Parts: sequence; C-alpha cells; structure tokens
Amino acid sequence: MPLLEPVFRISEICSLKGIEDVIICPGSRSAAITLAFNRNPEIRTKVIADERSAAFYGLGMALETGKTVALVCTSGSAALNFAPAVSEAFFQEIPMLVLTADRPPEWIHQYDGQTIFQKDIYGKHVKKAFELPVDYSHPDARWQIERIFNEAIDLSQAAPKGPVHINVPIREPFYPEDYEEYEFGSNKKHIRRVAHQAIINPEDWADLLEIWRNADGIMVAVGQNSQDLEEELSELSEGQNVVVVADVIANIQVPEVIRCHDLFLPKISEPTFNPDLLLTFGKSFISKSLKQFLRKHKPKYHFHIQENPELIDPLQSMTHKIEVNAKYFLKEVAETLDFEKFKEGEEDTEESDFKLNWQNAELSARKYIHRSVFVEDFAEIQATAMIFDALPEYSGLHLGNSMPVRYANYLSVLLDKNQKVSCNRGTSGIDGIVSTALGQAAKYEGIYTCILGDVSFFYDSNALYINGLSANFRCVVINNGGGNIFRLIDGPSKQPELEEFFVTSQKRNAGSICAETGIKYFRASNQLELSEILKVFFEKSDTPKLLEVFTDGETDATIFKSFKSEFTL
Amino acid sequence: MPLLEPVFRISEICSLKGIEDVIICPGSRSAAITLAFNRNPEIRTKVIADERSAAFYGLGMALETGKTVALVCTSGSAALNFAPAVSEAFFQEIPMLVLTADRPPEWIHQYDGQTIFQKDIYGKHVKKAFELPVDYSHPDARWQIERIFNEAIDLSQAAPKGPVHINVPIREPFYPEDYEEYEFGSNKKHIRRVAHQAIINPEDWADLLEIWRNADGIMVAVGQNSQDLEEELSELSEGQNVVVVADVIANIQVPEVIRCHDLFLPKISEPTFNPDLLLTFGKSFISKSLKQFLRKHKPKYHFHIQENPELIDPLQSMTHKIEVNAKYFLKEVAETLDFEKFKEGEEDTEESDFKLNWQNAELSARKYIHRSVFVEDFAEIQATAMIFDALPEYSGLHLGNSMPVRYANYLSVLLDKNQKVSCNRGTSGIDGIVSTALGQAAKYEGIYTCILGDVSFFYDSNALYINGLSANFRCVVINNGGGNIFRLIDGPSKQPELEEFFVTSQKRNAGSICAETGIKYFRASNQLELSEILKVFFEKSDTPKLLEVFTDGETDATIFKSFKSEFTL
Repeated sequence: MPLLEPVFRISEICSLKGIEDVIICPGSRSAAITLAFNRNPEIRTKVIADERSAAFYGLGMALETGKTVALVCTSGSAALNFAPAVSEAFFQEIPMLVLTADRPPEWIHQYDGQTIFQKDIYGKHVKKAFELPVDYSHPDARWQIERIFNEAIDLSQAAPKGPVHINVPIREPFYPEDYEEYEFGSNKKHIRRVAHQAIINPEDWADLLEIWRNADGIMVAVGQNSQDLEEELSELSEGQNVVVVADVIANIQVPEVIRCHDLFLPKISEPTFNPDLLLTFGKSFISKSLKQFLRKHKPKYHFHIQENPELIDPLQSMTHKIEVNAKYFLKEVAETLDFEKFKEGEEDTEESDFKLNWQNAELSARKYIHRSVFVEDFAEIQATAMIFDALPEYSGLHLGNSMPVRYANYLSVLLDKNQKVSCNRGTSGIDGIVSTALGQAAKYEGIYTCILGDVSFFYDSNALYINGLSANFRCVVINNGGGNIFRLIDGPSKQPELEEFFVTSQKRNAGSICAETGIKYFRASNQLELSEILKVFFEKSDTPKLLEVFTDGETDATIFKSFKSEFTL
Repeated sequence: MPLLEPVFRISEICSLKGIEDVIICPGSRSAAITLAFNRNPEIRTKVIADERSAAFYGLGMALETGKTVALVCTSGSAALNFAPAVSEAFFQEIPMLVLTADRPPEWIHQYDGQTIFQKDIYGKHVKKAFELPVDYSHPDARWQIERIFNEAIDLSQAAPKGPVHINVPIREPFYPEDYEEYEFGSNKKHIRRVAHQAIINPEDWADLLEIWRNADGIMVAVGQNSQDLEEELSELSEGQNVVVVADVIANIQVPEVIRCHDLFLPKISEPTFNPDLLLTFGKSFISKSLKQFLRKHKPKYHFHIQENPELIDPLQSMTHKIEVNAKYFLKEVAETLDFEKFKEGEEDTEESDFKLNWQNAELSARKYIHRSVFVEDFAEIQATAMIFDALPEYSGLHLGNSMPVRYANYLSVLLDKNQKVSCNRGTSGIDGIVSTALGQAAKYEGIYTCILGDVSFFYDSNALYINGLSANFRCVVINNGGGNIFRLIDGPSKQPELEEFFVTSQKRNAGSICAETGIKYFRASNQLELSEILKVFFEKSDTPKLLEVFTDGETDATIFKSFKSEFTL
C-alpha cells in the first residue's frame, strides 16, 4: 500500500462530508496530511505559520459558513497553540476538525524531538477526542480510521456544533516517493448521516401553551447567534403582551425588537416591566443590565430552548428546559396561537401595559442615543457611532471583546442595515479577534469589518502577516493607548496599580504593520478626519484597509459614564 | 476578614518559599492576586499582555535562576495561552507556579463571561494541579489554601523540577476597599521542606563498579543541561578507556570532551568506536548522528542516571536505571576508581584504541571545522561561526530550535569561552524563543544573546514589545526568508509543495519592530558587513540590540550539505 493511501482516503472523506477549507500549519510530522489535503481538488488549503492565529482564522471561516473547517498542525506545542481557538469553538459551538500529527505512542516523553502528551490534549473543550492507530497494515485499522473520520465530522456538525479532535500518530517516512500515486474518487468510505429533528409531544405542548396563554407579560430574550428566526420572531412580537429583547450579537433584524435595554433597564423600578413568562434561546447575553434585571425580577416561568443537554441557566430562573431547535419551537407557538386567534375570530386587542412600558422605554432610549452620540465630543462612543452609521448595508461586522462589543450593545439601533454581527463570546478572549475576523472576511461576499481595541489588536497582530488577506477586510482599531475597560469599572480605577497593572498603557500604532503588509492605512484623531475617511473607507478596493482612531482613554471613560448616567426615562 | 487577606497570605508564602519573580498578565478576575504580589516587598512583578509570551518570559527567568517563577492570569482562554510554555517547562524540568484566576465553579459553562474549563487544564504537562476552595470563611479552607501553596512550590522545586498549577476561583468583589490593609509578615504559614538525597546501596555500587572496571570502552554521553559537573567529568575523562561526548546544549566546559560527533560519526564504520558501557544523564540529545550510532551499536551495558521515575530510553539500550543525582553518582565513581588506582599504585596506562579512535576523529573534525567555516562563502553556517567566534566570554546564549541549535551542535567547539547555552528542547517548539531568551537576559549579569531563524522570530515578535527589555539582550535573526530546515531534509525538498507549504517563504525584516521598540538595529548581508558589526555588537549599551543577517536559503542548504559531506576522517 502506498504510504499516503490511508491519509489520502481521510482527505477524501473530509471533502465528501462537506469540508471545503483546511488551514495548514507547516511541519514535517504532518507532511502527509498536508499533501493529502493540498492534492485533493475538492479542498482549498491556506497556510498560516502561527498556530494560535491559524486556528482562529479557521474558526472565523467556520463561523461564517457553518461548515466544518479542518486544522492541521505538526506534533508538539503546536497543538497547544490551537487550544485558545478550540475552546472558543467549543463554547461558541462552531464546527471544527482539529488534526494534530503526533509521534507514535512509543516515542512520547522519550526526550526526543517535538513531543508532548497530545492525546486528549484539549480536555473538555472538544466534543470528542480520537486517536488514530499508528499501524495501518491490518484492514481493521483502516476500517477504524475511516470510521473515526466519519464520526468526527458528523459530530462537529451535530447540534450543538463544535470542535472534534483527532490525534494522528505517524511513523517515518513522512513523504511519499515519486512513484506513489493516489487516484481521488477511488476507495472512499462515506457513511451518510441522515438528518433528524427532536419534536415535543402533544401533551407537553399543551402544558407549555397553557402557560403561554395565561401569562400576563411575556419576554422573549434572544441570546447570541440566533440568525434566521426573523419571521417567527416578527410574528410572535405581534402578540399584545409579548416583547422581544435582543443584544447586538443576537443578530435579529426585526424592527420591533427591544435593543436599548442596556441603557434604560438600570433606570426601571416599576414592576409592570417584569415578565411573567420568559423565553430564552441562543447563547450568551452581553447586557449586564438585562441579566441583573432578570435575576432580580425572576419570572414565574422561564422556558429555555437549547439542544445542548447541559443545564445552562445564567439567569437563575429556568423552570422548563426544552431541548429542541428554536426555529421549530417558535414556529409551532406562532402558528398555534395564530390559528386559535383566527378560530375565535378575535379582534386585535390593545397592547398590554407591560408591552407599552417596554416600547416607550425603548423609544425614549433610541431618541436619546441619536441625540447624544452625534455631538461635537470625540471619544470612543462617538467614533463607534459614526462608524456604525457609515457601515455598508449587508456587510459583516466582528466586534472585539472588552469595550467594542459593549459600546455596540448600547448603539445597536444604529446597525439597522442588515449587518451581520459576530463576537467571540464563547470565551470572551482577546487572543484571536483579528484572525477570526480575517477568516470570516475570507468567506464573506461583501465588506467585512472588524472593530477592536488596541490591546486586542496588537495581541493578535501576527494575523495581518498571513499571506493573501481578503481585500474586503476592513479593520478599525480604536487606540486609546491601553486596556481602557479598567478605567470604566470601579475597582481598578481606585487602585494605585491602575495604569501599570490594568490599563497597561502602550504607545504603539498600527502604521508600521500596515506599511509592511500592504494594508491601506488611515488614521483619525477627531470627528472631521474620521468623517472624511468614512466617506471612502468602505469602498471596494484591491487591498484590505485599516483605520486607526486615536482617542483619549480618560475622556472616553468620562463621556461613556455620562452617556449612561444622563439618560432618564 | 479583609477581602485580600487570604491572597496576601498566599503571596507571602510564595516569597518565603523563594519565589522572587512573578509575571502578571492583566485582568480583573485576577486583580487580588496581582495586588497581593505587587504590594509584597519581597516580590518583583513584571506585566506582560500576551499570555503566551508572558509564560515563556517567566520560563526563561526560572531556567536561568533555577528558582520557581510564578505566572498570574485572569480567567478564560488566557490560561490556555500559558500552555505552550507550561509544556516546555514540564519537559525541560523548569520550576514554575502557574496561578490562573477562575470564576467560581457554579459559573462554569453558563454562557457568562470569560469562562472555560480551567480545572486540570494543563493535563499531564504539570507535576500536579490544585484548585483552591472558593469560600474562605471556614478556617479549614484557609488551612487548605496555605497547605496547597506550601506543597505546590515545594513540588515545583523537587527533582525533577517542573510546573505546578493552582486554579484560583474568585467571587466578586475583586478589589479591596480603601480601608482594607494587610500587614506583611504577620500570619504566615511556612512549612519548611528539608532537603534529602537518594544514595545507592553498597551492594548495588559493587555491581555497577564491577561492570565499569570490566568494560573495554566506556562512553559518557551528556544530555541537555548538565551544568556544574565539570570537575567530575574532567576526572572521569582521564580514564584510559573513557570518552565523554557532549552536545552543545549539555553545557559542559571540559576541554577533553568530544564535541564534533555530529560531523564524524556518519563516517565511522570500525567497531573499535563502539562502547562497551554507556553512561547517560541529563535530558535530550540534539545529535541525530549520535542517537543513530548508539541505537545501531548497542552497548553491552547502559547506565542511565535520572531522578525522574519515568523510563526514558531514547537510545533503546538501557540496562540499568539509576534514580540518583548525577553529581553524586559521578563523584562516587571518580573517587572510588581514583582510590583504587592509588591503592594499587598503578601507573597511568596507555589509552585504549577505543579512546584513541574517538580522540583522533575529534581532532580531525575540529581541524576541518576551523578550515571550512572561516572561508569566503557567506551562508548561515559561516555567519553562525563568525557570531560564535565574537561572542563574549562568560556570556549567555539561547539557541533557536530548528536550524540554529543544529548548526551550533556542529560548531560547538567555537563556543570555547565559558558561554552558557540554552535551548527549548523540552518540546522543541518555535513558539516562545524570543520571550524565553528575554526572560533569561533579565536574570543574567553579562551579555545575553539569542540566535534564531526568521520564522521563529516573527512568530514570537510580541515579545519585543514587552516594557523594559534588558539592555544586555542581543538578538541575532538569521533571515533567509522562510523555514529553511525543509530544504535540508530530503522528503519535502522533492515535493511540489516545498515553498508554499513547508518553507513558507516570507519577505519581512526586523527593522520596523526595532524602530518601534527602541532596539538598536544592525543588518548584514555579507562577511564584511557582519565582521564590522560584530566588532561593536556585543559591547555594553543602554538598549538591547538586534542583528539581522540576510542569507540565501538555497545557498545555505547547499553549503551546509557540502560541509557535512566533504569531511573525511
């Protein structure tokens, strides 16, 4: 059997199972896998040297397409550099297939070469971890290899999606001889996984709908990445006692949705705002105000829809855990209620106080936002507002963790042109933001923008040296010379260690990175400069562009604090 | 009890147990730990934003001093960015205390903030992993915390040294109030660990010495980091049938030591070179020639000295595993044999053929090296030789993995001025070389030089943005535009994927990084330029210096291949 045959068959199973993109990190131990993917005409490969950045780039691609992206690295600590992105993929439920070449088991911990303990190296941060047999000569071993790949790729796609690890021990020789040829399409072993869906029994439906019908105020709170539910949510939000609340990362483009809760909830004390029934789905919430409000005013019932069997209850109020697809659930509820209304020939009744209260608060907050951010001041929040306002329709947006995603949650009403918003909220790390956004841009047709702070940007700046950056990529760095979030929270700002140990002030700018990488560089330090740049920044171009906005950290903090405190209902 | 009291007590135990340096990565969850270390007058802290780089920097410090260095990070993927350095510390046996702040257990995997599965996150790459209790109110919990810190720091120092992990779940509030004060020196709980040493029973000694006396040819092969054994090895190497063989990373400064084995062993076929008894200690070997030679010509006896109870036998020939300190073993052997010789009044006999063969081969190789590297050609190997020749006496040298350490092993006879050599051979990664060397430089009195290739350099370039780089640091980047090792091994150089997937050519240079960081930048593209720069490069200065040597990858490969093949005995 030619050396590469088993590995070429693996690559073929991957493409048959829908893998289109493979990120390759250079190495010798992994050479056979690299060649097998590169020579497979159905696979596109991309080579990235820094494994940390490579894994986040692959994560970005998978996040954008929903398809499993494979990562390949050599043996040793390379595998550990994948780990931050693997953990993000696990918690954000992004499908990835992580292939780590390894020494054969007999050479582990023998003081010899690039060798660590790779088996189960990602711990609980993968859905499952496999290890291939090191000898392929017995037909059962080949059957096992092909079976593992079928299972691993299916698992990455099964709800909840996520990363799966296959450790691949390989003995020398690593490279094929000239005469070793492999014909694609010859010997594949592809087990098709038939789709299925969980449904709820009629009796249980009856119970749930009974609660729904009897509820006074119903809140539908939408967590991260709840795309493709617009229709169902529009219908539900017509209910006279239903409000739909969504953070910016929920990606819900329904006009009636409550978006400004971060701003107005801290000002609310009337019990008429408290829901009777809470319905949640999707992943995390950004809004601390919303979480605190709901933890304080626990609804009588809380339905949480989540296919993942883990019990995840950050609002501390769950009464019903419903392990079905959210679209199925919402559709059934909307259709049933609609049919009942039709049958009863009921006229549209007036909206409840509960709903009117929420709508009025939302309206005041929206007016306040428009009035107070487009002013003469120049700080992070104004700059963010101006950028949001200029973002093209149907464009992609990746928000940095720390401040950008928080500002965006206050300003999400400005994102009203079908922009699609992402953020690495699985682990909320700052370690791979640029890389993730670049991976997303590579799979996105329109303009793809990443907005992030200076600390996150420089942390992941290796990403910009990846060959062949997508020309649709736009990077906006809000540079206020350090980790300004620490000025905005009470604790550290009172400590003498604030500047050195928390803000960690820095004086870099992104100019030289752009000069080296051929990225077109823009810089703005005031409103006028920024508005001039924004007229052209999102235009199509042959190269990516980077805009660095310089603000003063202390001013940023002061203005944001007043923005929040000066709002009144 | 003031909020910070338990954490301040922890910081005090750390300083009492000999920890002097703590690397802090900024974060809010970890704030109390940060403050406790910063306010402890016995501790020096250093703030580094990129956790990957931070951990390698700490590793470099611990490698240089032998003392445990503590790392502190916030919750989430920060902890995973420590992992590459943690694995290097484990396999290179470097003492580290890894403190990861965490959410309390009830908040793990609840879609809320920076949270991953941190318990046991480093798997088998730490000597032991602890988790602190989250509630400190019960006195038993405080007893447990102090006990854990005593054990963890002791473990990091017990042979084999290594990293120990303590996960620290912390509930809000994270920051003390103004009135909360802590007096250092008040309430410490310091359990002293009394030193001990393993010795061998007289009967076993008798057996071992009997084998030694009866052996025809004895080879002592010295693995990585075997410092402080010069005296014992000098004495042993006087034996008429004993040769001592040491790679460059062994750090043995004994003139009689065989150093050029990488060059001459592939040319050896006579059985008179084969040892009868092999004695090994220290960690890994670089020389592939030596490993292959010993695997092929298995000695009758192979004593391996290693305190680590794992059975590590990369030469596949071990007959006796001796779990004692190498210094004790060598001293006992040398003294016993010396005493016996003295007692027997034996004259120094003639050296054995075995020894003469090795000495002659070494002599030819040394002459060849001097003759063939100081020539008019300009390639990696000549540049490395010129740099070695210029390195100051008693200076430190960290070698990059991949090519630099391999070149150095061929040229180690040029390092004849008490230079101390390190290399991250625990995992042989390229992920933290600059950071490690910077950490070493910070703890080194003289000039500290790091020599590495362009791919490794740019991979870890965040390191150069650390605030307060030591002025004694010298960085030499051999830039041949990619991962040239792949041109030097047979397999990849025959594949059409060579350039794109293995060498991964790049066109960057280090100039702009130096301009941004205030590092003095030098560049050389030929012998003349290089020799001019080397006249001043190692002089003392107020800022670190970086020398970038540009060579042509294909020429480098051709010249190195001829260098190896043209040598004859």
